[in-house]
Amino acid sequence: MARTVDLNADMGESYGPWVMGRDADVLDVVTSANIACGLHAGDPDVMARTFRMATERGVGLGAHPGFADIQGFGRRRIDLSSEELANLVTYQIGAAQAMARAAGGTLRHLKLHGALANMAAENIDMARTCYAAAERVAPGIVVMTLAGTAQEAAAEDLGLARAGEIFADRAYNDDATLVDRSQPGAVIHDAALAGPRIAEMVREGAIITASGKRIPTRIDTICCHGDTPEAIEIARSVRASLAAAGVTLHKL
Amino acid sequence: MARTVDLNADMGESYGPWVMGRDADVLDVVTSANIACGLHAGDPDVMARTFRMATERGVGLGAHPGFADIQGFGRRRIDLSSEELANLVTYQIGAAQAMARAAGGTLRHLKLHGALANMAAENIDMARTCYAAAERVAPGIVVMTLAGTAQEAAAEDLGLARAGEIFADRAYNDDATLVDRSQPGAVIHDAALAGPRIAEMVREGAIITASGKRIPTRIDTICCHGDTPEAIEIARSVRASLAAAGVTLHKL
Amino acid sequence: MARTVDLNADMGESYGPWVMGRDADVLDVVTSANIACGLHAGDPDVMARTFRMATERGVGLGAHPGFADIQGFGRRRIDLSSEELANLVTYQIGAAQAMARAAGGTLRHLKLHGALANMAAENIDMARTCYAAAERVAPGIVVMTLAGTAQEAAAEDLGLARAGEIFADRAYNDDATLVDRSQPGAVIHDAALAGPRIAEMVREGAIITASGKRIPTRIDTICCHGDTPEAIEIARSVRASLAAAGVTLHKL
Amino acid sequence: MARTVDLNADMGESYGPWVMGRDADVLDVVTSANIACGLHAGDPDVMARTFRMATERGVGLGAHPGFADIQGFGRRRIDLSSEELANLVTYQIGAAQAMARAAGGTLRHLKLHGALANMAAENIDMARTCYAAAERVAPGIVVMTLAGTAQEAAAEDLGLARAGEIFADRAYNDDATLVDRSQPGAVIHDAALAGPRIAEMVREGAIITASGKRIPTRIDTICCHGDTPEAIEIARSVRASLAAAGVTLHKL
Repeated sequence: MARTVDLNADMGESYGPWVMGRDADVLDVVTSANIACGLHAGDPDVMARTFRMATERGVGLGAHPGFADIQGFGRRRIDLSSEELANLVTYQIGAAQAMARAAGGTLRHLKLHGALANMAAENIDMARTCYAAAERVAPGIVVMTLAGTAQEAAAEDLGLARAGEIFADRAYNDDATLVDRSQPGAVIHDAALAGPRIAEMVREGAIITASGKRIPTRIDTICCHGDTPEAIEIARSVRASLAAAGVTLHKL
Repeated sequence: MARTVDLNADMGESYGPWVMGRDADVLDVVTSANIACGLHAGDPDVMARTFRMATERGVGLGAHPGFADIQGFGRRRIDLSSEELANLVTYQIGAAQAMARAAGGTLRHLKLHGALANMAAENIDMARTCYAAAERVAPGIVVMTLAGTAQEAAAEDLGLARAGEIFADRAYNDDATLVDRSQPGAVIHDAALAGPRIAEMVREGAIITASGKRIPTRIDTICCHGDTPEAIEIARSVRASLAAAGVTLHKL
Repeated sequence: MARTVDLNADMGESYGPWVMGRDADVLDVVTSANIACGLHAGDPDVMARTFRMATERGVGLGAHPGFADIQGFGRRRIDLSSEELANLVTYQIGAAQAMARAAGGTLRHLKLHGALANMAAENIDMARTCYAAAERVAPGIVVMTLAGTAQEAAAEDLGLARAGEIFADRAYNDDATLVDRSQPGAVIHDAALAGPRIAEMVREGAIITASGKRIPTRIDTICCHGDTPEAIEIARSVRASLAAAGVTLHKL
Repeated sequence: MARTVDLNADMGESYGPWVMGRDADVLDVVTSANIACGLHAGDPDVMARTFRMATERGVGLGAHPGFADIQGFGRRRIDLSSEELANLVTYQIGAAQAMARAAGGTLRHLKLHGALANMAAENIDMARTCYAAAERVAPGIVVMTLAGTAQEAAAEDLGLARAGEIFADRAYNDDATLVDRSQPGAVIHDAALAGPRIAEMVREGAIITASGKRIPTRIDTICCHGDTPEAIEIARSVRASLAAAGVTLHKL
């Protein structure tokens, strides 16, 4: 039984003279790039470079918008009105579309960043506002939604193209939430384990929790990281295990 | 002999809690709006509001990009490489396109702001870089170019749609440059004079200099201001005089 | 029975090209200036100008630090660790001290701004952190504290010099909280009423609530505003009524 | 004949989530730290951390102010009026003084950063404006001045405490200017050469140029870098060679 899945990673999170992540390396592994849009990271030069590198490698182009907060890297919660939220997303989607076009590509997907993503995972109104704003200016855009969260519910409500997402390196509780980082085993550091575990989830179409429980879940994309050599090893392991299991890797 | 001309003004230059300009008033007079794009003024909320107001009044939507310098309002010169310049313009054009779309309209034109405009008026390479970046992501965009400057030459070189621009309230030297602001009469404050003067220029298809000389010039758009009651009076006078002279006012 | 009281107003809240408030006018009325410190408003040029104007008029010099959020004007709540809060205040107090010194004066007091002030009014730990950071780098600094809030409790805990503050233009509930702005009469717009009302409170050493109840309160300073002509009229009325009541106006 | 010299390095140039430099390592080698002040790098948290680390190691505390340009890292030239320049320096010196005090230390020196330093090396008026602003709010502050530049002349004009500076890793022309980075040998990469070369310069009280010429120069401090392992090796080599030559290393 053939399956297709996408591997995604956040990137383009450098800023001015400061480098973050190993974008060139991770671009050789993933099939979709979530690229920061200038307000929490990723100035126009970093964006242009990242969209170009991703396009050259045939990696899918996505916008990764966050709160307008460079110092806080979009990780601090900011209360905005619906209108402000929509404007924030519209602005960044537009910038990303132009950068994609300038690189010879097309913006295909959206993944929210940091505190904006966390708040949208908890609050369906926020998720709806963000996604509707994106769909309005980029009709047909695919939104990446975290399994079991308000992100998912909002995308379904709006009838959007959506990609269900799980994490390559995080353990799950029996209610499909992530094991808290303060718990042992919350983050998977062993690349040799990470790949086979994800391949099994994709094959079964289910999240496999820390206790071994199966939670049937739509898995369209696997979130990898590219900020450390270890993270890239995990991404490579996931890619190799999926290929070995006969899963086709393809961008959204 | 029928003529059509556009009246433009910069707007959307408020930021956060700070208001600049009388955008609602000037939108009732002009036919094209040059809207700041967030990097020197005009945060996403201001942009959204301004694009919406302009769209509601049928005013033409334009991007008004500047250097990324909020404190300096884009008026300080910054040396950028060609690539950085292109990225700066691409980013802002993209944001403006999305804001136009969200407001139910379409981005139609580009006018450079502040120090970026001044540098592009002097340096054809800079002008070409900015305009080519815009055309790449917004094919067919109309660029407003100052008469007799490198902006004009660059747009012609690139074969772009272009709108030749003169100022409603500035006196001209005999070489088509602006009379320096330090000179008496450099800025026209009397609305009763401003309108008939511009109507005459449009009718003759020529800049009329302070000494009375005629310099044949393509006049597609008249730059008005909206930051003071006096400026709005001048814009109204220009509009009335043009209408009286049988000139049709129409956006680009 | 002689009494002395201070009149304070926030100022220096312009930024780059954007003007906010009528600082020159309000400086002729108040005895203490709370000057923004560059992170939510008040760039170094605005700060320098404001500290100089205040010094020339003999008005008391105060720092008015807020969250680092220009677009949000420091009105959006941001969750920071204690250490981050202390650093935020330390940085701004230091900048304000230098600006005071450059203007030939000395920084004398501190009043928190916007969301930082609101959070410190609710949360004694936050207030303590901010005030302790200020006292560490500016020993003896006087902190303005809102009557009946955690600001007051924190300053007393730390044994700091403190100035109890009431509002010139806000009605009070019987528990000393402010009448919500959504209620009629919450904000006093009539200068003819505002002055005598405050004079009575100062004479009685009590907040007089909307219902007429007296709540004994230490009143060292009256918060006025300077952003509208009406606000300045109210400040003038307060000043005149206090003078007529034999109250000496003096900076902290 | 005993000699004392200082080793300095720029640090505290991280920002928000982005790390730059190996501050902890370089602090073990140098005797003075030039710490960024928040406007081109070094947010309040980075500043606080860096001032504390430097204080704990007994390293001299210095301000390293630059243009207000995070994205450009203070490396882009910005034309400011004298007043704006003074305000820029005053603001940053004040913030640095407070951070030093909060860390239990005292701000002792000033070294200009990036484009601000380069412009002040060429333009004595700019250097004078910056140094006078610093001296006004930090009387007795020691300014680090590059040998043979307008920085040096300005500090002498103003009669300021000054520390003459040479570079640990740059070759010199026979007119005391730096060999252009485009030339072979402009930057010294070999730690084994770097240390003895500097020790000889300090012993002779002269810059030794690439051709071997001696230019008598006041050498009070040696500029090291801490951004790469190689740079730290060079700093260690300089320290060891100076110690071996009987030169005492001491902060300013």
